[in-house]
Amino acid sequence: MSDRIGGIVDRVRSFMETDVYPIEDGGRKEFYSILPVLEEKRQKVKDLGLWTPAVSKEWGGLGLSLWEFGQVSEVLGRSPYGLFIFNCNAPDAGNIEVLTTQGTEEQQERFLRPLLAGKIRSCFSMTEPEHAGSNPVVMSTTAVRDGDDYVINGHKWFTSAADGAAFAIVMAVTDPDAESPYARASQIIVPTDTPGFTNVRNINVMGDEGEGWGSHSEILYEDCRVPVTNLLGEQGKGFAIAQERLATGRIHHCMRWIGICERAFEMMCERAATREVAGGLLASKQTIHNWIAESRADIDAARLMVLDTAKRIDESGPDAVHIEISLIKFFVARVLDTVLDRSLQTHGALGMTDGTLLSFWVRHERGSRIYDGADEVHKSRVARRILRNYGLRIS
Amino acid sequence: MSDRIGGIVDRVRSFMETDVYPIEDGGRKEFYSILPVLEEKRQKVKDLGLWTPAVSKEWGGLGLSLWEFGQVSEVLGRSPYGLFIFNCNAPDAGNIEVLTTQGTEEQQERFLRPLLAGKIRSCFSMTEPEHAGSNPVVMSTTAVRDGDDYVINGHKWFTSAADGAAFAIVMAVTDPDAESPYARASQIIVPTDTPGFTNVRNINVMGDEGEGWGSHSEILYEDCRVPVTNLLGEQGKGFAIAQERLATGRIHHCMRWIGICERAFEMMCERAATREVAGGLLASKQTIHNWIAESRADIDAARLMVLDTAKRIDESGPDAVHIEISLIKFFVARVLDTVLDRSLQTHGALGMTDGTLLSFWVRHERGSRIYDGADEVHKSRVARRILRNYGLRIS
Amino acid sequence: MSDRIGGIVDRVRSFMETDVYPIEDGGRKEFYSILPVLEEKRQKVKDLGLWTPAVSKEWGGLGLSLWEFGQVSEVLGRSPYGLFIFNCNAPDAGNIEVLTTQGTEEQQERFLRPLLAGKIRSCFSMTEPEHAGSNPVVMSTTAVRDGDDYVINGHKWFTSAADGAAFAIVMAVTDPDAESPYARASQIIVPTDTPGFTNVRNINVMGDEGEGWGSHSEILYEDCRVPVTNLLGEQGKGFAIAQERLATGRIHHCMRWIGICERAFEMMCERAATREVAGGLLASKQTIHNWIAESRADIDAARLMVLDTAKRIDESGPDAVHIEISLIKFFVARVLDTVLDRSLQTHGALGMTDGTLLSFWVRHERGSRIYDGADEVHKSRVARRILRNYGLRIS
Amino acid sequence: MSDRIGGIVDRVRSFMETDVYPIEDGGRKEFYSILPVLEEKRQKVKDLGLWTPAVSKEWGGLGLSLWEFGQVSEVLGRSPYGLFIFNCNAPDAGNIEVLTTQGTEEQQERFLRPLLAGKIRSCFSMTEPEHAGSNPVVMSTTAVRDGDDYVINGHKWFTSAADGAAFAIVMAVTDPDAESPYARASQIIVPTDTPGFTNVRNINVMGDEGEGWGSHSEILYEDCRVPVTNLLGEQGKGFAIAQERLATGRIHHCMRWIGICERAFEMMCERAATREVAGGLLASKQTIHNWIAESRADIDAARLMVLDTAKRIDESGPDAVHIEISLIKFFVARVLDTVLDRSLQTHGALGMTDGTLLSFWVRHERGSRIYDGADEVHKSRVARRILRNYGLRIS
Repeated sequence: MSDRIGGIVDRVRSFMETDVYPIEDGGRKEFYSILPVLEEKRQKVKDLGLWTPAVSKEWGGLGLSLWEFGQVSEVLGRSPYGLFIFNCNAPDAGNIEVLTTQGTEEQQERFLRPLLAGKIRSCFSMTEPEHAGSNPVVMSTTAVRDGDDYVINGHKWFTSAADGAAFAIVMAVTDPDAESPYARASQIIVPTDTPGFTNVRNINVMGDEGEGWGSHSEILYEDCRVPVTNLLGEQGKGFAIAQERLATGRIHHCMRWIGICERAFEMMCERAATREVAGGLLASKQTIHNWIAESRADIDAARLMVLDTAKRIDESGPDAVHIEISLIKFFVARVLDTVLDRSLQTHGALGMTDGTLLSFWVRHERGSRIYDGADEVHKSRVARRILRNYGLRIS
Repeated sequence: MSDRIGGIVDRVRSFMETDVYPIEDGGRKEFYSILPVLEEKRQKVKDLGLWTPAVSKEWGGLGLSLWEFGQVSEVLGRSPYGLFIFNCNAPDAGNIEVLTTQGTEEQQERFLRPLLAGKIRSCFSMTEPEHAGSNPVVMSTTAVRDGDDYVINGHKWFTSAADGAAFAIVMAVTDPDAESPYARASQIIVPTDTPGFTNVRNINVMGDEGEGWGSHSEILYEDCRVPVTNLLGEQGKGFAIAQERLATGRIHHCMRWIGICERAFEMMCERAATREVAGGLLASKQTIHNWIAESRADIDAARLMVLDTAKRIDESGPDAVHIEISLIKFFVARVLDTVLDRSLQTHGALGMTDGTLLSFWVRHERGSRIYDGADEVHKSRVARRILRNYGLRIS
Repeated sequence: MSDRIGGIVDRVRSFMETDVYPIEDGGRKEFYSILPVLEEKRQKVKDLGLWTPAVSKEWGGLGLSLWEFGQVSEVLGRSPYGLFIFNCNAPDAGNIEVLTTQGTEEQQERFLRPLLAGKIRSCFSMTEPEHAGSNPVVMSTTAVRDGDDYVINGHKWFTSAADGAAFAIVMAVTDPDAESPYARASQIIVPTDTPGFTNVRNINVMGDEGEGWGSHSEILYEDCRVPVTNLLGEQGKGFAIAQERLATGRIHHCMRWIGICERAFEMMCERAATREVAGGLLASKQTIHNWIAESRADIDAARLMVLDTAKRIDESGPDAVHIEISLIKFFVARVLDTVLDRSLQTHGALGMTDGTLLSFWVRHERGSRIYDGADEVHKSRVARRILRNYGLRIS
Repeated sequence: MSDRIGGIVDRVRSFMETDVYPIEDGGRKEFYSILPVLEEKRQKVKDLGLWTPAVSKEWGGLGLSLWEFGQVSEVLGRSPYGLFIFNCNAPDAGNIEVLTTQGTEEQQERFLRPLLAGKIRSCFSMTEPEHAGSNPVVMSTTAVRDGDDYVINGHKWFTSAADGAAFAIVMAVTDPDAESPYARASQIIVPTDTPGFTNVRNINVMGDEGEGWGSHSEILYEDCRVPVTNLLGEQGKGFAIAQERLATGRIHHCMRWIGICERAFEMMCERAATREVAGGLLASKQTIHNWIAESRADIDAARLMVLDTAKRIDESGPDAVHIEISLIKFFVARVLDTVLDRSLQTHGALGMTDGTLLSFWVRHERGSRIYDGADEVHKSRVARRILRNYGLRIS
């Protein structure tokens, strides 16, 4: 760790301890009830000069490299509120990145600046219930040009954080007849108060409907009309643009997961060191030793892989790491799943309650093995690429 | 399967299909809102002559052997409401069993008859937050004799179904100076309207506070006074009596889990056979094949083990199967965990919502690896018993 | 266990203890050097009236059902020499079965009787190095009719026990133009002294070339000419006949594996109970407890599944258990692999030497996950059959 | 990878391809039969200036750092002969290291120089059959001072490469009454032609007795008398000295294992890309995809962990990495085990023969989970160290 990023990480870590962990409350509080506290913390982060660390200095951030930000993201990931308080939470972080690189001046003024300032929230509306996320080119939502407008119709779900968001970036088919399936969709900005945009419900996900930033919504687009100036980048480039945010987003996610792992690991050790069971402390049991040692190895391995991938992206861009980006997806998701499970099991009945963050994480991070492409899909993808070196092209 | 039980199982299965699955609604409805429907179904079960199948004919049940009831329990376990509708749900089923064998005539008249009739519900209050469930002899709740009363003080949690229960059977230390730690506690019946009995809260368990039969409560006993005639069995026999219900309860639970497995397995196959992904149907993917085949083997193995154990208990009593009772605990809990996980993963994002029962089960059956002794405890217990054959006694 | 088979199993178990275990010597002795001892033991088994237990009484065996013989097979499997000493070792047992049901009187006189008497050995020559065993219909060996002879040409390997065998049953394509690929091959008896039959080498398998019954040979058939009367059953029925021996053979193998598991399990417990390590006996370590408990559960599950399948075959024939026959293949093979691995690990360095049977078994039973169809093939096969119930036919 | 080491690695890799892989022959050839070829290759390596790369320039090596040599070791590990041909094979490499740092001038002249020149081989005699390797302070071999001699008596086994070695470094108790059990043993050089030194046998290890450098011997020391000038370092410092070679040796081993993994991985891909099975190429099967992807992730993770640990040792010495040294032991051993198993399974029956190196490696690298402390021991060790941060000292 270089001196620069080491100093930042230390300051972030210290803030987490003094300001973030104390408000966690087992993940019990719903978003709107804790929002006033979060806003107060966000102001404090701004005052400390640590706001939007992933964003370039030009746009008011810290201008960290991906390898540097990864290390911040791990620390922020240690609490469900960390990334939000520093304004580098999904999906806003990805939307910020896309708007920075693809947005028109008008779009940046209207949508990017308030996002960067933390005054509004946004969402990204891609997944459809009728089609597998693993095959994003199959999509039913359409945006039809009508004069100077797009008229959007479609059905999305798992549009995370839509509840209370100021706008959505929607993926919709604009060029159904384009030869390549990858050239058919576009990304279009849709303010959520546009007529025809309906948040049908906050979906109950693993027992929680959630609300605000913590929601995952089902959205209907019914003759939803926006000006063509809301098009993000070029028409037909929806996938190309989505691809861009992917590599960065994967590093963010994976480092956040590692933060969760570290926290759950510490909770496991703490519990083992204090809980009396038949025969002595839990910490005297070899099964617990196995879990501690294997978790330590797995988490260390995960971090080294993700940071190594981040460094390669910093050096050579995301095209150099197609395989690695898939590897870390399923590798870290599995480690997260395993470490959380062991920590919960170590806590016994307590682990299932809201007395710790474990129940919250076990439930909500179950998605890590599903979203952004199920682990199984990434494995096949990796294998196909590797097998090309052996003269094969498997569809 | 003999003809007799085969006929009953067929009738139960048919009732599940016509009357129970249609009301499931993804486990969305809380207990009190669905209770009127459940009561209607219970009446129908009574009319069909299938009520309280696990209970002896003398007490109005079907008088099934454990091996026979196990097969009914599997079918009922296929829905979260099955066992309740047939009045053989935990913890009432265990309380019924204990009251039948240990209750005084007065206790049976006041507590058992209305339970058997399905007019009241009950709970079993043993686990304490301060002590590991794996070491039940360490317990802080006391019941002190005062004249013709016991005065109970203590703190319990995970007293399942306490919300709305008419009475609790409480485990409390009555003989703190008894030489054997197994002779210190007694089981005492405490009506929940007794002054000093407080349901502090329905604990949030894996995201749900639950209510009524679906709750798990934290209970305070503060100078809670009941007549000594509420003692169940002899004073100091609390553990002996608890032990009795254990073997039977384990078979019930395990067969219920297998019912859940079968249902989740069917959902996995159904999903695979209908969901299009990149490259065709999910059902064409070898990873899905592996999950189907391994799940089929695991579930079949689990059922054979549990039914074999049930048959041995029917033939020789629970003392002959100390090892088997622990083996099925951790074996079936692991199968349940794995099959549910695979089925959820096969459903992708949908599996995390309340669009199927999988989210409900994944969350609430996580407890299967914890309650009634964590799997890890049972493994050590099995090993210690086996190692006795090699001349060892390991404490 | 019925009284009849219980008595036989007890007698076999007792013979194993007095006569077989003492000659094991860590599997060190090659076949021909230990053969005189084995012959002596075989005579003793004949004298005890326990010879060829799987064979019908008509042909001089005990006439056991498959479910009954399975239980004998388990006990015999506890030693590498058990099945040979009782003359129910592969591949002779399968050849005996086929000759009994398919052989002409002449074939039975010449080949079956001496096999039954233990005077000769035989082999089964099917697998070819150029083709995957999982796809047996693709086969290069041909048998061309020339007058009253077949002229056989081909290349086989893993023709087990060919070294020293009196004859081979060869699978060869006789009807290359038959419509169904399953109707192209036939089984033909080839005495090993036929000109053109060459045992190229005893293949080095996991470090051992083996010899005699313990060998796995590469065989060349070069213009190897045998009379058409050596055809087994009808021409073109090679697969149908092979299929017949499969179900029976699977039960034999699986029960033999379970015998190995039980022996390795006992060795693991014995070692744990006597080996001092840092901190006390190995038996005091929880990791060992986990291995003992999980192995106990897995072995019990395996046995119940195999015996249940055997019983179904006895009752309804092999066509009723297509799925089960595949399930037990991969389930028991995995249990075998795991239990052997744990037992070896418990023995530390000793486990890798020839100081116990573990090294022998770990090496030679590695094949269990490969032969008779790799586990992966069986899993897909099971899944395809199950998915038919969901309206699918996946090729 | 820096330019310097990158260049060396490239040259080594190229030599492996032209000179080493072609002589492998499936690991079939025993040591003495292939020795003439190996000697020829060793000369070539000397001529290329790549001889003894791990040794300091002062002693004629390349003076590579541990992080640098690790990368060479991986490439050499890709063949069973690689490390031997470059004269950095165990146990000579460790003996060279110890003699370099601890040897007297006389010892260096007599034992170190010919070792460095590749003229003799040596062995390290520590493990005893009667005591667990996990508890090295319990040791029965004694060296009693008698005038200017030590008289050594004891029983060792798994003294690797003893067959044909010129000398052994023996661990023996010299100070049985020292307070600390870690201060009782010393390391003493014993020429193998010393009267009383008997190589009882080359132990059959996983089916091979081996010979020469490929042997693992049982050794008897019976009144074996050597001058006190053969003491290595100070008396009573046996463990301290052994500890020193441990960290380095662990890096060497782990990188060698990773080399094996890479080779087995390539063989798996190659096989998958060429083997036809039912339904097409093996490479079209998703199970194979899973194996390829998971292996790729695991191997990458393993390498990053080991090289990270090596770098830390280079920077801060072995005391800074007590935990990491144990983590990589069990992590990489597990990866090795898994990758070899998958590669063998992908090869089917061929994988069990000597037609590839897989059978050789699966058998001989099984020891990786046992030697230098069984994985289970390292896991407990890691956990105990970590738990110290939570206020615990668990014995």
